[in-house]
Amino acid sequence: MAFLVEADRLKSVLRATTLADGSRRENSGEHSWHLALYAMVLAGEAGPGVSIDRVVRMLILHDLVEIDVGDVPIHSSEGAAHGSAEVLAAERAAAERIFGLLPDPQGAEFRALWEEFEAAQTPDAVFAKSLDRVQPVMQNLASGGGTWVTYGVTAEQLEARVGVKVARGAPGLWEWVRERTRGYFRSAS
Amino acid sequence: MAFLVEADRLKSVLRATTLADGSRRENSGEHSWHLALYAMVLAGEAGPGVSIDRVVRMLILHDLVEIDVGDVPIHSSEGAAHGSAEVLAAERAAAERIFGLLPDPQGAEFRALWEEFEAAQTPDAVFAKSLDRVQPVMQNLASGGGTWVTYGVTAEQLEARVGVKVARGAPGLWEWVRERTRGYFRSAS
Repeated sequence: MAFLVEADRLKSVLRATTLADGSRRENSGEHSWHLALYAMVLAGEAGPGVSIDRVVRMLILHDLVEIDVGDVPIHSSEGAAHGSAEVLAAERAAAERIFGLLPDPQGAEFRALWEEFEAAQTPDAVFAKSLDRVQPVMQNLASGGGTWVTYGVTAEQLEARVGVKVARGAPGLWEWVRERTRGYFRSAS
Repeated sequence: MAFLVEADRLKSVLRATTLADGSRRENSGEHSWHLALYAMVLAGEAGPGVSIDRVVRMLILHDLVEIDVGDVPIHSSEGAAHGSAEVLAAERAAAERIFGLLPDPQGAEFRALWEEFEAAQTPDAVFAKSLDRVQPVMQNLASGGGTWVTYGVTAEQLEARVGVKVARGAPGLWEWVRERTRGYFRSAS
């Protein structure tokens, strides 16, 4: 129960991305819910050997470390902050503390699932990462640019920082979404 | 994708319950995420025959109808509004529209899962309902009363409107939580 009350704080971690209607910034709790729904809806885009139930569990847990570290936007610091050694070390310490609130073996199981997501090597983690990358693209398209405007992102940067990762786990999905981003970047340039 | 963009609106549906720190009202999107986490953590409280993966899916979907209908708090209108014939009919129409945004068979599958949750007859649905009822109790305990203060709820009303439902799917959990609510109601009376 201490873990579940602590987890509540993820609802106060703000992301750079807004809601689809642009009314306010999205928080990491509701983002995690939205991603779980993405996994359920887009199950057909997953490659062979993907367990959607494991992907859903992974996505429910994936951002909990942000309670301590905050969200580090993909496009911030010219794309250099997200995944930096400093951020990764802080997230590891956060995982230690937060999953440590659970009794073992549950704490160890949850932590292993989070580490699998972070490592992005297994089919489940690769697909989960694709969804984590594509949802902000959909939010930006719906809100008229969102973080692409905030950070002055180009179509090439989107392809390098986001597209490659989405395509790795869900190539057909990225093809479909990229088509829709073309209109935005054409009119923005 | 139309369904996933429409679902984003659940993040703007406000519940009566606040965050654990009392800073603002909780929305139904982040609430749904929190419940999925409850299911993962409290899996050991589920009765025999419960599939936690199905419970998680059910909880991810369970509040989508509130996009059209809004949240109807358990304790509002002296406990009479929630589950009234009028609200149920509106929720049914909302399910028709919202799940209708998905292609079949997926739309029909999601709708069936939502109906199973609403009917609260299968072991999965009974456990999912228990979590949906117990999470606001935990939020109220953390925030110093929350909706119990708002609606002037007594320990007896809590038992009748909430406790019975939690105990149906997770008797040990309700015993543990009720113990903690006793302190609150003693000091409030």
